[in-house]
Amino acid sequence: MRILILGGDGYLGWPTAMYLATKGHKVGVVDNLAKRKWEAEVGSSPLWPISSLQERIKIWHEINEVEFQCNYQHTMEMFVCDIAENRHLLYKIIEGFKPDTIVHYAEQPSAPYSQMDAQACVYTQRNNVLGTLNVLMAVLHADKSIHIVKLGTMGEYGTPNIDIEEGWLDVTHKGRTDKVLYPKKPGSWYHLSKVHDSHNLEFACRTWGIRVTDLNQGVVYGTDTNETLLNDRLATSFHYDAIFGTVLNRFITQAVEGVPLTVYGTGTQTRGLINIRDTIRCIELACETPADAGTFRVMNQFTEQFSIMQLAKRVQAVAIKAGVICVMNTIPNPRVEKENHYYNAKHTALTNLGLIPHLLTDDVLLDIYRQVEKHKSNINKDMIQPTVKWRQ
Amino acid sequence: MRILILGGDGYLGWPTAMYLATKGHKVGVVDNLAKRKWEAEVGSSPLWPISSLQERIKIWHEINEVEFQCNYQHTMEMFVCDIAENRHLLYKIIEGFKPDTIVHYAEQPSAPYSQMDAQACVYTQRNNVLGTLNVLMAVLHADKSIHIVKLGTMGEYGTPNIDIEEGWLDVTHKGRTDKVLYPKKPGSWYHLSKVHDSHNLEFACRTWGIRVTDLNQGVVYGTDTNETLLNDRLATSFHYDAIFGTVLNRFITQAVEGVPLTVYGTGTQTRGLINIRDTIRCIELACETPADAGTFRVMNQFTEQFSIMQLAKRVQAVAIKAGVICVMNTIPNPRVEKENHYYNAKHTALTNLGLIPHLLTDDVLLDIYRQVEKHKSNINKDMIQPTVKWRQ
Repeated sequence: MRILILGGDGYLGWPTAMYLATKGHKVGVVDNLAKRKWEAEVGSSPLWPISSLQERIKIWHEINEVEFQCNYQHTMEMFVCDIAENRHLLYKIIEGFKPDTIVHYAEQPSAPYSQMDAQACVYTQRNNVLGTLNVLMAVLHADKSIHIVKLGTMGEYGTPNIDIEEGWLDVTHKGRTDKVLYPKKPGSWYHLSKVHDSHNLEFACRTWGIRVTDLNQGVVYGTDTNETLLNDRLATSFHYDAIFGTVLNRFITQAVEGVPLTVYGTGTQTRGLINIRDTIRCIELACETPADAGTFRVMNQFTEQFSIMQLAKRVQAVAIKAGVICVMNTIPNPRVEKENHYYNAKHTALTNLGLIPHLLTDDVLLDIYRQVEKHKSNINKDMIQPTVKWRQ
Repeated sequence: MRILILGGDGYLGWPTAMYLATKGHKVGVVDNLAKRKWEAEVGSSPLWPISSLQERIKIWHEINEVEFQCNYQHTMEMFVCDIAENRHLLYKIIEGFKPDTIVHYAEQPSAPYSQMDAQACVYTQRNNVLGTLNVLMAVLHADKSIHIVKLGTMGEYGTPNIDIEEGWLDVTHKGRTDKVLYPKKPGSWYHLSKVHDSHNLEFACRTWGIRVTDLNQGVVYGTDTNETLLNDRLATSFHYDAIFGTVLNRFITQAVEGVPLTVYGTGTQTRGLINIRDTIRCIELACETPADAGTFRVMNQFTEQFSIMQLAKRVQAVAIKAGVICVMNTIPNPRVEKENHYYNAKHTALTNLGLIPHLLTDDVLLDIYRQVEKHKSNINKDMIQPTVKWRQ
C-alpha cells in the first residue's frame, strides 16, 4: 500500500512512518516542520535531541540497506509542505505520490498552546480546520478512492453524563429515532478544531462519497517503538512540558527530576490512555481496512481509562520502586473542565479489528522512567508548571 | 443601548441598523464591504442599485435631521473593518464604541458560493469561523459583559428524523441523561461554518462566562421594512440569483420575468421561513433580553414551515392573480440533500419573548411581486439557473 503521512515529523507521525515502512508499505512523509517554531515560541524542547527529518530518513535507508528514493520496500520519501497554506503543492504531492491512504496527523496538537492567547487560538483553528479542508479538496481533486485516516481526539467528546459511543449516537426523542453524530462538548480551542474537522469530514463523505476514518485518540504515553530502538538518531520527540507534554510523560519526568507531580485540581478527571506502540498499530489496522466509500467511520483509539490521580499514584509507586522519593501536589486547575464526572467511553472497534493492547503495567512505566532518567540532565524544570490558564 | 452591527452593509444588517436606530439605540455599523467582491466573482448584482453605505448613512441622518456623528438618537457610525483579518482594528472599534450588544451578521452567507470550488470553500470557513473567533477575543479583551447576538441558520440542523429543538437536546442513553448541544448535520461548507461558530461560541460561554445568543434563522424573504421605505436610496440589497438569492425571492423574480420557477428535485424539502420584518424584530428582542453571563442561548428564528413545492405553488397562484402565466420546472437537484424527510422544528423562544409574526399571506407575496416588477428590466435571466453542483 502507498501511504502518505501528513505530519510525519511529529511524536506519532515519525514512528508511524517507520512502522508502516517496516510492514512493507511505501511511505511518504509530509510536514511543514512548524512544531519547531511552536516549541521556540513557548521555550520548550524535546527531552532529547531530535535529528532532522532528512537525517532520520537517511539513517532509516542506511539501516534498511536501500538507496534513497528507490521504489523498494522500506523506502520513504519526504515532502516539505504546509497543507493549510499551500493547497496546490499538496495537490501536486498527492498526484505524484499516488497514495492509497493518507494518514493525517498534521495539526497543532496542544490544548494549552491553543489557549495561550488570541493569536494562538486563531492560528490553531486556521491551521487545523483549513488544513483538513485542503486534504479533502486534494482527495476530491486527485482520486476520491483515497482513504483518509484522520487523527481526532477523545477530548472532542468532553465528559458527557452518558456513555461515549464511537462517533455516532442512536437517539430516541419524542418517540422518533435517528442516528446522529455524537454531540460534542470539547474543552479547548484545539479540541474544538478537531470537532470542526469531524463535521467537515462527515459532510465530505456524505456529499462526495469519499472514505474517511476518524480516530479519536486518547492521551498517548511512551517513547519507544521497535523502530525507534534501532538507532538513537531514529528517536521520536518526547515532550514533558506543560504545553506539549501529555500527562503521563509529564508525571514520569517530574518523578525522575524529583519534583512534585502536578495534579490539576482534584485529579478525579478521567481520561482514556494509549501506549505509543498501540497508536501505530491502530493506524495500521485503519489503513488495512479502509472505510467504505461514502462512509465516515469513527473509532475511539485508546485502551484503558484512568483518573489523573490514579496515574499520579501509579507513577509514584514506580518511582518509589526505582528508589526515589516522589510526592504529588494538587494545584489549582488551570483548565476549565469537570473534575467529578461520569466517564464510560466505548473503544471496541479497534480491538474488533485485531488490536491487542499494550496495557499500562508497572514494567511499562518503569521502562519510560529509565528512558527519561538517561536524559535527566536535559530536564528544564521551568517548563513543567502550567502557565496557560483557560479562564482569563 | 449601544449596538454594534457587524455586517451592517448586508441584506439584513442594513435594515437592522435603521430599525434599531429608530428605536432609539445608538448604532455602529461595521463591514468589510466584501459582498461587492463576491457578487463580482459570480457576476451577480442586486435587483436594484444599492447606494454606498456612506451615502445611505448620510441620507439616514438627513431624514432624521441630526448631524453626522452626533451622539443623539438615530445617529449611526460606520467602520470599515475585516473582522476575520484585522483583529486589532476590531478591538479598537469595540474599545471606542463601547457596545452593550454586538449583532454579528458579518459572514459569507451563501451555501452555493461555498460549494463553488476549493478556494470558495476554504475562504468561507476561514472568513466565518475566524471572524467569529475574533469577535469572541474582542469581547474577552474589551468587556465580557457585552452580549453577542450571532446569526446562525436553521440549515445547521439539516433534516434529522427527530424534532428539531432550539439548540440543545435532552438525551437519554442507556438509562442516563444529559443536555447536549443539538447534533448537527448541515448541508454545505457554509452551513458547516455556522456549526463551527456555534461550538466555538458555546465553549467561550462555558469557559469565560460571556453571554451569547445564537439565532438559527430560517430562509428570509421580503424587501421592505418601514425604514427602507423612507427613501429609495435607503433600500436594502435584493438578490434573486442562484448564488445569493433566497428561494422565495428567487421564485418571485422568476414569476415576474415569466420564466419557469426552478424547483430543485421533487421540491418536497421543507424549510423554515421568516419575513425580513420579523428578522429585525427578532434581533431587537434578542438585544433587549440579553443571555445570562455564561449562557449560550439558542433560538430558532423562523415563523412558518413550507416545502419548496408549496412555496412555488404559492408564488404561482399570486402570479396568476397578477395576470401573468407562471409555470414551474422541477430540475435535477444541484444540492445533495434529503428531499423526502421528516421536519418539525421548534420555534417558540422568540414568540415567547414577544414576536408577533408577519405570516406569508398572498398580500405579502403580491407586495414583493410588485416591488420586483418595478425593476423587471434589471433582471438577468442568466443568473437564475443553478450552476454550482454539490456533487463534483
